[in-house]
Amino acid sequence: MNTINVGIIGAGRIGKLHAENINKHIPQMQVKSISDPYLDFEWANTQNIPLKEKSHHKIFSDPEIDAVIICSPTSTHSQFIIDAAKAGKHIFCEKPIALDVATIEKSIEVVSQMEVILQIGFNRRFDPNFMQARKRVLAGDIGRPYLVRITAYDPEPPCYEYIADSGGIFLDMSIHDFDMARFLIDSEIEEVYATGSRLIDPKFEEHNDFDTAIIQLKFKNGALGVIYNSRQAIYGYDQRVEVFGSQGSIETANIAPTRTVLTNTECVSSDKPLYFFLERYKTSYIEEMKSFYECIVNNTPSPVDGNDGLMAVIAGLHAKQSSQENKMIRIDQFEKKYPTASRGVFF
Amino acid sequence: MNTINVGIIGAGRIGKLHAENINKHIPQMQVKSISDPYLDFEWANTQNIPLKEKSHHKIFSDPEIDAVIICSPTSTHSQFIIDAAKAGKHIFCEKPIALDVATIEKSIEVVSQMEVILQIGFNRRFDPNFMQARKRVLAGDIGRPYLVRITAYDPEPPCYEYIADSGGIFLDMSIHDFDMARFLIDSEIEEVYATGSRLIDPKFEEHNDFDTAIIQLKFKNGALGVIYNSRQAIYGYDQRVEVFGSQGSIETANIAPTRTVLTNTECVSSDKPLYFFLERYKTSYIEEMKSFYECIVNNTPSPVDGNDGLMAVIAGLHAKQSSQENKMIRIDQFEKKYPTASRGVFF
Amino acid sequence: MNTINVGIIGAGRIGKLHAENINKHIPQMQVKSISDPYLDFEWANTQNIPLKEKSHHKIFSDPEIDAVIICSPTSTHSQFIIDAAKAGKHIFCEKPIALDVATIEKSIEVVSQMEVILQIGFNRRFDPNFMQARKRVLAGDIGRPYLVRITAYDPEPPCYEYIADSGGIFLDMSIHDFDMARFLIDSEIEEVYATGSRLIDPKFEEHNDFDTAIIQLKFKNGALGVIYNSRQAIYGYDQRVEVFGSQGSIETANIAPTRTVLTNTECVSSDKPLYFFLERYKTSYIEEMKSFYECIVNNTPSPVDGNDGLMAVIAGLHAKQSSQENKMIRIDQFEKKYPTASRGVFF
Amino acid sequence: MNTINVGIIGAGRIGKLHAENINKHIPQMQVKSISDPYLDFEWANTQNIPLKEKSHHKIFSDPEIDAVIICSPTSTHSQFIIDAAKAGKHIFCEKPIALDVATIEKSIEVVSQMEVILQIGFNRRFDPNFMQARKRVLAGDIGRPYLVRITAYDPEPPCYEYIADSGGIFLDMSIHDFDMARFLIDSEIEEVYATGSRLIDPKFEEHNDFDTAIIQLKFKNGALGVIYNSRQAIYGYDQRVEVFGSQGSIETANIAPTRTVLTNTECVSSDKPLYFFLERYKTSYIEEMKSFYECIVNNTPSPVDGNDGLMAVIAGLHAKQSSQENKMIRIDQFEKKYPTASRGVFF
Repeated sequence: MNTINVGIIGAGRIGKLHAENINKHIPQMQVKSISDPYLDFEWANTQNIPLKEKSHHKIFSDPEIDAVIICSPTSTHSQFIIDAAKAGKHIFCEKPIALDVATIEKSIEVVSQMEVILQIGFNRRFDPNFMQARKRVLAGDIGRPYLVRITAYDPEPPCYEYIADSGGIFLDMSIHDFDMARFLIDSEIEEVYATGSRLIDPKFEEHNDFDTAIIQLKFKNGALGVIYNSRQAIYGYDQRVEVFGSQGSIETANIAPTRTVLTNTECVSSDKPLYFFLERYKTSYIEEMKSFYECIVNNTPSPVDGNDGLMAVIAGLHAKQSSQENKMIRIDQFEKKYPTASRGVFF
Repeated sequence: MNTINVGIIGAGRIGKLHAENINKHIPQMQVKSISDPYLDFEWANTQNIPLKEKSHHKIFSDPEIDAVIICSPTSTHSQFIIDAAKAGKHIFCEKPIALDVATIEKSIEVVSQMEVILQIGFNRRFDPNFMQARKRVLAGDIGRPYLVRITAYDPEPPCYEYIADSGGIFLDMSIHDFDMARFLIDSEIEEVYATGSRLIDPKFEEHNDFDTAIIQLKFKNGALGVIYNSRQAIYGYDQRVEVFGSQGSIETANIAPTRTVLTNTECVSSDKPLYFFLERYKTSYIEEMKSFYECIVNNTPSPVDGNDGLMAVIAGLHAKQSSQENKMIRIDQFEKKYPTASRGVFF
Repeated sequence: MNTINVGIIGAGRIGKLHAENINKHIPQMQVKSISDPYLDFEWANTQNIPLKEKSHHKIFSDPEIDAVIICSPTSTHSQFIIDAAKAGKHIFCEKPIALDVATIEKSIEVVSQMEVILQIGFNRRFDPNFMQARKRVLAGDIGRPYLVRITAYDPEPPCYEYIADSGGIFLDMSIHDFDMARFLIDSEIEEVYATGSRLIDPKFEEHNDFDTAIIQLKFKNGALGVIYNSRQAIYGYDQRVEVFGSQGSIETANIAPTRTVLTNTECVSSDKPLYFFLERYKTSYIEEMKSFYECIVNNTPSPVDGNDGLMAVIAGLHAKQSSQENKMIRIDQFEKKYPTASRGVFF
Repeated sequence: MNTINVGIIGAGRIGKLHAENINKHIPQMQVKSISDPYLDFEWANTQNIPLKEKSHHKIFSDPEIDAVIICSPTSTHSQFIIDAAKAGKHIFCEKPIALDVATIEKSIEVVSQMEVILQIGFNRRFDPNFMQARKRVLAGDIGRPYLVRITAYDPEPPCYEYIADSGGIFLDMSIHDFDMARFLIDSEIEEVYATGSRLIDPKFEEHNDFDTAIIQLKFKNGALGVIYNSRQAIYGYDQRVEVFGSQGSIETANIAPTRTVLTNTECVSSDKPLYFFLERYKTSYIEEMKSFYECIVNNTPSPVDGNDGLMAVIAGLHAKQSSQENKMIRIDQFEKKYPTASRGVFF
């Protein structure tokens, strides 16, 4: 067993989660170092992490560190990717790489030159439900895919400050769903038509943002897609996909804490869905990190690479534009530059 | 199309139901005559029935009547079967034929001598859910059947007077389930162990009856069975079966008015089961009568014949005895006398 | 009980269905006359219908006929509505009234002048599942409705000739869903964005038609909507709705022949959905006719009137235009002319 | 946070599981020592365990060890409980304590004298589904409980050697279900009627054992119960409970790897249940150990104590006897000696 030493940059909610997952579930990885300007030392001391820093600088220069996990604010992602790549370290970076194409391209280029592995944190690909859906689509179990539908509702809106820096609903929320759509259909998005609404909270208007979005997609292989996003499903985290094809349909149901069913004089009732992403995607966060480990030790490209990170942002930017111009936008200008590598079978 | 003229004896709830079903759904049958000492003429006048009588006598002597449908009180069933058979009429008789074996045997014997068709009103056999379950069991889809479980709960207890004449829970309620068990397992019941309880209403004790029963069965083919009966499931009519076998399991869910699902901050909820047998077995009452028609015009034995009527009563009597003696009772003394005819494939 | 005499014009599949439903299930209605240039007399003779004609003329002039049921080809609907209205007869007319607005308006005007009742055959409103969904939406059980989603897939495409005269997918299939969307959201459609694709069969291209459509809607009350139509779901008739709102979500599942579940070494499996509309909407066809009867005897406006027929066609025409121009189309020019009457509580 | 040092005796499948669970999920517990005559050192070296021994002796004498976890063969349980109690250590012991009452009583007595905490490994109590079922029963959500039904089927029979030492199906399999029944109904078992069959494999007959069992129960509070056990459900681990009461019913469904649903021309299908107890009860093994920790640090009695261990064995012994004598057996002679302590609210 090869032990991989990692340094984690950014120890907010998601950085802590990755650290804890590695410590609990991936014994072959070792968190050697963690850094955050506001590091929660009380938490860090409960974790088996040798180096705890306020600054990330030592992580890049530490020769014992094989890989970095970037969980800092989005604005720092691209520079940290470049720094890590130049230091010869493999990179796991939370989404999105950046909010503009040029910056992402620059990062990917350095990664490519330095021949390190870059994995983007589209964790939902590793959810067992969606993996099985994709597996069945690729196996031809539903024939030729005609239409993918993705429902992705958060249980409650983020705070006022978060919205300001989020890049808007299409780059903050929908970006996961663009990636999921590409994952399930296995083809590139060619057309986007997006509409946004403010149904939930006026604070989204103040940020020139939407709280509800419907996005229509057309893929290169002719398949269609629709993404639904809402900042608030009062009953919890609504995360479902459905792919309809020439030979059948596959869909995933929401996940609830238990499968206990009560029947009384009122109705037949069961648990509402799990609350939010930490509960719903608990497994997928662990699995994506195991996958990153496997790529490093086997020296294989990541199943969710820089190109995937780029494509989701491109879709998000076009959706934003479409919602402003009220018309369908084509994405073809990007197609030649960043072909999706044929990565063989991935599961 | 051969039109079959029927006379209905007894126009209570179930007699009316058969009349209406024939008029609405079975144009090839004609209700020529209906009789009841307390005939509801207001209702009868809304139905297309030429003869409406207070007495049943003319029905047996009417040469135009091909078949009689006996829906009068249980105590009259056996005599009416004999009278009808002697008049050369085919017979559809509600369950049970009688509450004792000798009386049933005598009726069956006359039916046999007169070579008329006798069908017993075990309507549940014609429910599409249970039919599919049986079809799959017979097709070997669950391998060798090991265990059948039947849940049959009424939504509310019958009135005080009804209990007195019902023959008790084992002969009034469970009798349907003995037949269902035989139908699903396709083998005869060999052993019975029954326990009864009074959990719901003290009035059952006054009648030396139970409101709750659990009956264990063992079949000739080695399969086991358990029947659950309750006089009151507050949420409605609970009617489910499950057959577990060497290669799998088949079960039927309850049927609800709609399949509408509400998700809110409390739970995920849907409709409770249909209220009672008129709603739940609406289809099966129509289908059993269509089957009766088919048997008459094709001159084939009924899929639910006198022997089935007898066997269910025998099981019920043994269950009653078992519940009194607190021990398992074997039914082998009956096996030679009334073999279940091999009736070929029935669905 | 007031008996209502009806004449049915057009005895194709749907005309026969209405005749049979009335004869079986609505004793207070009497089919006095039926007409069709190619009348199937063999079928007609099995039904209790006094007059069977090749021509419809006598139906309008028969003073004993209270109401006509128009099941003839679409191109004849508007004229028959006018003729029937002028003859003082109440009218049940299959959808659509016509494929253009002016023709529909003219028919409605005569109906209005003659003060007869006009009901349009949007039978799905009477499906118990959708009725319950609407009831819950109106009761506020999901709070303010944000988004309605309607899936409506046929099991197989119609024949080549049918497509030619159908008016295209938006006026032939989607028209039911525009009505359902209005029914569920209880507000008028204000904006339409529609895209069509040819994924299933090249014959649709030959007719300049689509086999797959996605239609985005925006309602006057701010709610959004998406309709999915496919001419072929290989597994059967896929008919589901989902309404998401501020306090919850309500959805309806597909209906299957049984609720029998098999568990084996492969999977847990149950029946696929019912095959097509005759099976799926069996109840709703009966219920819509009962509603028509009630409106006549109580002299109340129909819950699905000429305006509903008009609005669905208007939405269809705008969807067609949107799919050709690839842009969102507003429907506001129609709003003042044909306000939806407040019809009180309807279920 | 108080760190609790534990020693694990027996490092077979279940001992390893507890060690790994503590290391991964319960940072406040520390596995200080593990012993097994056939210790798998390769595995042990991957775990953070300071002392790895072939013999258990040092564990009892180590003053730093607060608690022992007994995972050795059943025949050693009672002596190890006594040794541990005398050494002043808290005890977590896998079920059953022993296969006879006197031995169990002796162990419990020493535990009681030494005032250490004893928790029995009835892990299923900690499954979120069953916990919710019990919570609802105790909350009165189904009114007065009338009937509990427990289905517990293994996916495949154990090996020939295992059967020999297992104590038979009633003491090896059903024992979990006796405990679950008591847990759900919150009352003591008063009567047992058990039948066993050999349907699956002749090797059970060679051991004078059964592979299939049905056990009827009657509780002190009047509720009834039925337990189903099979050594082989070919589709996986079937673990369901259902409690029916005066005001409703609560049931738990099986758990599958995903909630992905495929609809095709054959059927609607989803994943079969999880394979076996390691998958199905993954969470409950962690939760029971957390509960043990909480009891130690808060010095509270365990929610699953020696009396629970005793009662399940008593029920198992009576079931065995009943299956041999083909009659119902009462358990009242034990009731006075070992009352279930009122342990307040436990979840």
